[in-house]
Amino acid sequence: MTKQIATNVHWHEGEVTRADRNRLLDQKGATIWFTGLSGSGKSTVAVALEKVLTERGKLAYRLDGDNVRLGINKNLGFSAEDRAENIRRIGEVAKLFVDAGVIVLSSFVSPYRADRDLVRKLHADAGMDFIEVFVDVPLEEAERRDPKGLYKKARAGEIKNFTGIDDPYEAPLNPELVLPSHQMSLEAEVAAVLEILEQRGVLRGA
Amino acid sequence: MTKQIATNVHWHEGEVTRADRNRLLDQKGATIWFTGLSGSGKSTVAVALEKVLTERGKLAYRLDGDNVRLGINKNLGFSAEDRAENIRRIGEVAKLFVDAGVIVLSSFVSPYRADRDLVRKLHADAGMDFIEVFVDVPLEEAERRDPKGLYKKARAGEIKNFTGIDDPYEAPLNPELVLPSHQMSLEAEVAAVLEILEQRGVLRGA
Repeated sequence: MTKQIATNVHWHEGEVTRADRNRLLDQKGATIWFTGLSGSGKSTVAVALEKVLTERGKLAYRLDGDNVRLGINKNLGFSAEDRAENIRRIGEVAKLFVDAGVIVLSSFVSPYRADRDLVRKLHADAGMDFIEVFVDVPLEEAERRDPKGLYKKARAGEIKNFTGIDDPYEAPLNPELVLPSHQMSLEAEVAAVLEILEQRGVLRGA
Repeated sequence: MTKQIATNVHWHEGEVTRADRNRLLDQKGATIWFTGLSGSGKSTVAVALEKVLTERGKLAYRLDGDNVRLGINKNLGFSAEDRAENIRRIGEVAKLFVDAGVIVLSSFVSPYRADRDLVRKLHADAGMDFIEVFVDVPLEEAERRDPKGLYKKARAGEIKNFTGIDDPYEAPLNPELVLPSHQMSLEAEVAAVLEILEQRGVLRGA
């Protein structure tokens, strides 16, 4: 991290590449895509993982409803078509972050297999790591937790098209990792993701 | 950049903040928004600046037509409405990058003042730096350069709604910086932007 303040500026030919940014950050950009029912614990593990990665000097960034639904996707609703466009845009944003060298922690219900597989393909076509993590708890458990009171509203008919109640959740067929968060400690969940990141070389540069 | 591989994972309470990421990167996320006619030299200065920043150990990322129009905005055309949505989404993506701690180099014609001002407001409302750089060359000069042969096609009527020919370019009223690229060396352009980044504290962490 050389500090140099000069009006004489020099540079070499050629553009900065993804590999250059990975080297700079001593990590490899990748998308970790948490999927699962509302209340399954996706955000909980993403927040904990972000903390651990940051403490290790790694640059991680969470994409979730708070910073996406209120921003880039504020003009989208919850029809099947809008849900698909929601996930497509998130996938494209994740790709940009991976290109920048960042470890993306994406936390969305993302209930449809086809939508998730599109994002997987977007990454694969660009030679980028996409790690699908299925946070897998039974509906009864998610509904028992109901951290945002959404299941209660869905059961009362106040929310329509709620995943698990009157909208389907299509579980991943071949996720990179399954986390039954009702049977594991948060520590163990984070450790399981970190192990995959180690294996994939995400925690070191080129 | 401590390397630690453990199955025992520890973390403190609380979420990682923008300030934490800025500290990690020893810089402050910010958006540098280059605007100007096609052929004015926006990308040339953005590429050169990215190179210099990277060589100084700073994480910069360019947003441009190549990675945005073909990705997140692939479902948008060139009507006034689509142009507005194009810039809105780019502004929201830039905001996410700034939140992640990245120095964003955005390079789009972005001909409408209202669209650019919306992006400025998005940043201001979030307490983020938005640095508008007007790459200002006369239309005749941009058309003489015509690096992509687009002016020729527009004059021949093969491209409609081309900025400067049959669509307006609304120059910024109060940009942070004006670069008349036909009267300056590329070195001087980059130095001028760097000076603003120094003044704003973008090149150092919290």
